[in-house]
Amino acid sequence: MPDTPIKALFFDVFGTLVDFRTGVAREAERLIAPTGKTLDWGAFADAWRGEYQAGMEEIRSGREGYVRLDIIHRRNLDRILPRFGLEHLDEDTRAELNLAWHRLDAWPEVPAALARLRTQFRIAPLSNGNIALQVDLARRNNFLWDAILGGDFSRDYKPKAQIYLDAVDAFGLKARECLMVACHSSDLAAAASHGLHTAHIARPDEHGAGRGETAPSVTVDFAAADLADLAEKLLIPR
Amino acid sequence: MPDTPIKALFFDVFGTLVDFRTGVAREAERLIAPTGKTLDWGAFADAWRGEYQAGMEEIRSGREGYVRLDIIHRRNLDRILPRFGLEHLDEDTRAELNLAWHRLDAWPEVPAALARLRTQFRIAPLSNGNIALQVDLARRNNFLWDAILGGDFSRDYKPKAQIYLDAVDAFGLKARECLMVACHSSDLAAAASHGLHTAHIARPDEHGAGRGETAPSVTVDFAAADLADLAEKLLIPR
Repeated sequence: MPDTPIKALFFDVFGTLVDFRTGVAREAERLIAPTGKTLDWGAFADAWRGEYQAGMEEIRSGREGYVRLDIIHRRNLDRILPRFGLEHLDEDTRAELNLAWHRLDAWPEVPAALARLRTQFRIAPLSNGNIALQVDLARRNNFLWDAILGGDFSRDYKPKAQIYLDAVDAFGLKARECLMVACHSSDLAAAASHGLHTAHIARPDEHGAGRGETAPSVTVDFAAADLADLAEKLLIPR
Repeated sequence: MPDTPIKALFFDVFGTLVDFRTGVAREAERLIAPTGKTLDWGAFADAWRGEYQAGMEEIRSGREGYVRLDIIHRRNLDRILPRFGLEHLDEDTRAELNLAWHRLDAWPEVPAALARLRTQFRIAPLSNGNIALQVDLARRNNFLWDAILGGDFSRDYKPKAQIYLDAVDAFGLKARECLMVACHSSDLAAAASHGLHTAHIARPDEHGAGRGETAPSVTVDFAAADLADLAEKLLIPR
C-alpha cells in the first residue's frame, strides 16, 4: 500500500470496465444481419478496434485538432466496411452502428465493485471515450461517476501526459493521491511516469478468449484478478 | 412546452441549487469566531461574493488565462479580509475558509427534485465552479450528475458563449434539446441566445431575506417557484 492515502481512482473504460468486443459484435450482428449479410462478428469488432490507435494518433501527433472519439469511431467504421463487403451500407445504419460503443456492457463484477469503491474514493473514468459516450455507458451500467475526465476534458488522447495531469488537477489532488486502474500495461506505465499510483486488472478475454493481459508487464502498485479483487485490496473495512 | 423533446438539463449551482450566503456565513463564523473576532457574517459572505464577477472578468476578457474558481475565490478572500480587520488571518485559516464554497448546502427541495429529474433527463451542472468544488458539493448534497460541465470544462466563465455551446456539444445534442435552469435572468438570457430552452427558479432569499429574483426579467420557457415545481412541470407521468 502506498504511503500517501489514495483519494481518487481513475479508470480506463474500454476493456477494463466494459467488454467492448462482445458488445460491438452483438450490435454489428443486430444491425447488419437483417441486410442478409453474415459475418464473423467478432472479427468485425476486432477490425474496427484495430483502427483505434491510428485514428487517435492523428490528434496526439498534432496533425489534426481534437475531434471526439465518436467521430474517430465513425471514420474507422467507414474504413473497414469495404473489407467486409459492406461498402453500400446505408447512412442511417452506419450512424446507428457507431453507437455500438455507447451500448457496451460492463464485465459482470464491475457495477457492484465500482459502487463499493465509490464509498471511499472519488471515481472518474479516464478514457479516450468522449463524454456523451461515457454518459451512455454509465447510465446503461449504473456507473455513478464523480466527474467524467479523459479525452473530451483534455482535448487529446491517452497516453499523452495532459490526460493524466489534468485529471489529478481537476480533482485538486497530487498525483500520488491518485490511482490509475487499467487492464493495459501501457496506460499504467504512462500514469506511473507522471507520479500516479497504478492498479492492473486482468482481462484475459479482452480481445476474445485468451487474448488479453493476464498480468501487468510493468511494475504496478496493485495487480488484481478483477475489479472486485481490487476493491478487496483497496477498501478499508469500516 | 417546447416542440422538441428536452433531453438534458443544465444547472446553475450557486444560488440556484445551493444557498451560498448561509453556507459561507456559517463557515466564516466557524473559522473566524475562534480568533476572537465577531462580524456580521452575512455581510462578510456578501462582500466575498461581491468580488465574484470582477474576478472572472479578467479571464472572460482575455486579460488572463483560465484559472479555476477556487483560485479566484482565494484572491477575493485576500482582497476583502482587510475590510473586516482580518489582514493578519493566518494562511491555514485562509486556505480552510476558501473551502467554504465546497461546503454549501442545497436549498431544501433540491436533492429530491434533482433525483426525480434524473430519471428522465441527462443532468449536469453548468456552473462557474470548478470540478473539485462541484464534486464536493455533489457528495455533500447527494447530487448524482451525469457529467460536470461549465468553467473547468470550457476553461472560461459564464456568460461566455463557449460554456453553453460546449455543454450541448459534450452531450451530443442540439441546443433546442437542452434546458438551462437558473435563478439568474442574465444566465438564462445568455443560454437562450444560443438556442437553449430556459427555466427560471425563484430564489427570493439568495442574497439574504428578500434579496433575490422572484421572477424572471426575461422571456423563459418555464418559470418555477422552486426545483420541485420545475420537476412537476417537466416530468412526464409514467
